[in-house]
Amino acid sequence: MSILIKSVLVDGKEKDISIEGNVIDAISDPGSAKRIREAEFVLEGKNKAAIPGMFNGHTHAAMTLLRGYADDMPLHEWLSTKIWPLEARMTEDEVYWGTKLACLEMIQSGTTFFNDMYWYWEGSARAVAESGLRAMLSAVFIDGFNDEKAREQIRRNEALYEASKQLSERIIFALGPHALYTVSRESLYWVKEFSEKHDLLVHMHISETKEEVEECITRYGMRPVEFLAELELLSPRIIACHCVHLSRKEMELLKNHNVKIVHNPVSNMKLAAGRMPYEELKKAGLYPNIALGTDGCASNNNLDLFEEMKIACLVHKAGSGDPTSMSAQEAFELATSHGAHVFRLNSGVIAEGKLADIVLLDLKKVELVPNHNLVSNIVYAANGSCVDTVICDGAIVMEGRKVEGAEEITEKAQEVAYKLVSSDDSS
Amino acid sequence: MSILIKSVLVDGKEKDISIEGNVIDAISDPGSAKRIREAEFVLEGKNKAAIPGMFNGHTHAAMTLLRGYADDMPLHEWLSTKIWPLEARMTEDEVYWGTKLACLEMIQSGTTFFNDMYWYWEGSARAVAESGLRAMLSAVFIDGFNDEKAREQIRRNEALYEASKQLSERIIFALGPHALYTVSRESLYWVKEFSEKHDLLVHMHISETKEEVEECITRYGMRPVEFLAELELLSPRIIACHCVHLSRKEMELLKNHNVKIVHNPVSNMKLAAGRMPYEELKKAGLYPNIALGTDGCASNNNLDLFEEMKIACLVHKAGSGDPTSMSAQEAFELATSHGAHVFRLNSGVIAEGKLADIVLLDLKKVELVPNHNLVSNIVYAANGSCVDTVICDGAIVMEGRKVEGAEEITEKAQEVAYKLVSSDDSS
Repeated sequence: MSILIKSVLVDGKEKDISIEGNVIDAISDPGSAKRIREAEFVLEGKNKAAIPGMFNGHTHAAMTLLRGYADDMPLHEWLSTKIWPLEARMTEDEVYWGTKLACLEMIQSGTTFFNDMYWYWEGSARAVAESGLRAMLSAVFIDGFNDEKAREQIRRNEALYEASKQLSERIIFALGPHALYTVSRESLYWVKEFSEKHDLLVHMHISETKEEVEECITRYGMRPVEFLAELELLSPRIIACHCVHLSRKEMELLKNHNVKIVHNPVSNMKLAAGRMPYEELKKAGLYPNIALGTDGCASNNNLDLFEEMKIACLVHKAGSGDPTSMSAQEAFELATSHGAHVFRLNSGVIAEGKLADIVLLDLKKVELVPNHNLVSNIVYAANGSCVDTVICDGAIVMEGRKVEGAEEITEKAQEVAYKLVSSDDSS
Repeated sequence: MSILIKSVLVDGKEKDISIEGNVIDAISDPGSAKRIREAEFVLEGKNKAAIPGMFNGHTHAAMTLLRGYADDMPLHEWLSTKIWPLEARMTEDEVYWGTKLACLEMIQSGTTFFNDMYWYWEGSARAVAESGLRAMLSAVFIDGFNDEKAREQIRRNEALYEASKQLSERIIFALGPHALYTVSRESLYWVKEFSEKHDLLVHMHISETKEEVEECITRYGMRPVEFLAELELLSPRIIACHCVHLSRKEMELLKNHNVKIVHNPVSNMKLAAGRMPYEELKKAGLYPNIALGTDGCASNNNLDLFEEMKIACLVHKAGSGDPTSMSAQEAFELATSHGAHVFRLNSGVIAEGKLADIVLLDLKKVELVPNHNLVSNIVYAANGSCVDTVICDGAIVMEGRKVEGAEEITEKAQEVAYKLVSSDDSS
């Protein structure tokens, strides 16, 4: 497929963008693109700005089904009385529809890649394949320190990895050892070996809460990142999500092993988990390794990275007492170029030779007026509704805010969500 | 005018809402409304929910012109090198267009009332009159401790008050003594007398920053609220905006005098001003007196109260370490019924006899799906784009997201904003 985007703002200048296959072929002055007559699809870029599709670095997509189902509760009570019982009853079909709804929401808010960890990998993969988005998918690996369960999880992950090779290149298989309090040392060792052998990324919750750090100290006599270092699991392939509670030594270990970090400020605030030490991680040299995520819809409760960027800036300014902490430009980089770096994708910027994962913003939206500084407007004023058109992997997945099948997805997901919740005795 | 809204969700049940003049005349079961054939306008409410129009308790509307103009700077440098120099050059025409843009943004995000303090009162008033919104407008009263300036401000406010009587009832005149560090004791005494005599509300910045509290202690030997108590200025008519830095004694004074408070969490976070002691104010019995505001667009940078409600919840959960702090229901009340209470309007809930200031949400928007809990979705998942239709003072100001003249307003405001900034030597 070939697409020409005519006269669109790229880094403040009007340009034509030519897309061939799934790659940005050329960025040229308006009218000068040689392919102007040849492109199969021509998009009018007037009053629009092109930005990279955003990266949602950590989410549980199908949890859109639980949006608004339980809020304002203490963390443990929320998990044990609301979230886990419902998840235990979920089926692959429900995960499929929940992920479809999540993909729709992400498309509509300018996200072209997400890193997911959830139950029923195949359901998520099917939804992603249909959506046109790019995603890294991991199955929740929890063995509860049980050998039988561990063997079962290993077999399942080996099979999923094999199966994933047959799927669209937009779907990347990753390992998803849930956390140190749910996965045994032996299973983590398998994760290390398997991820090394097949060069797979490893998606893991690390030091989200104080309690989990304390539990790790009790169980292993050391802090989480220290324990992972001892296991030799730390590597550039580790996607450490949350990283709220870190010692200075742990930050150094993360840096020395070039570990990747995903920051989820909204979820951390909503569950009162704490604030990731952003300034300290920057000082430790980890800035390029930090991406941004929304977490699942039960603890956010949306998937809008525009909102996440703003709140990231706000929480660090407020938390540090310094209004210069996390600038708009930094938040934008977390959600774009850092995402590409963390997930090893040749995208995250609008440039020739990069993957054609592109978002067109509608500059006539009131939140983007006046346009003194587009990045500031994107981070501090916009929300997902400022997105007009989305291209992922060289294909148009939304144009003029229209996504194919959107109505069916919302209706069906709503139906599935109501059925799931109506079977809940506790609510 | 008469309007019938057919089969719309009101507090979880499908109802017909009849509006006569500017009042909600009847709320009845679908089809039973006697006026079904008589209403001049019939709105289809299927797949929509009716909520009260929201109250933006503190803003400087025309500052939309400065959206994104200067961010990520230390507070004093930001004000003195960026904001104040630009404001000094603003004209009434610019304030008019900036306020037009703000009104458009507020309509599109479900706000039907705002409390404003800005330069060129007449420009703001003209914009509000045309927009169809309801607003309380105060002129910035700053005398810089100069007698001549004080007399000039007093004369101006007396004249504006008289002039305001000729305007639409949607426009309410208030006094706007800027803050204790910009207004002399003598002028504050005049504010007290004049507001008592004419029963006017008094819109004031109080204890936004630590520095201003320290300055007050240096100047008057006591903290801001103590000083206002001594002046006998504390009363149910005072709208104390920010209230970030308060002693226990000051909270008691606020409570004893039934003072109203407007919370601006986004602005306080962005400028690193601190966190309003929400839990303590609640304990002091001030909960019903707390409304919500966005502050101006230079320190937010939008006017979306959906976002403000969410961030209010997040900042208090994170700040207190308690995920049950400020529930979605509380944030929703701050933005609706508390706003009505604070600004003495017979609205803020959808009920018979109340002012017809109504927002219809589009329940098919992905952020509102599934609808397990509408208030949770409104606060944690929605943004302004979920608003479909807005009625203010019994008139339809937006239908299906269409606002009359929207394109002209954004174009003209953008033009005016660029001209204003291009005359800035410092940028």
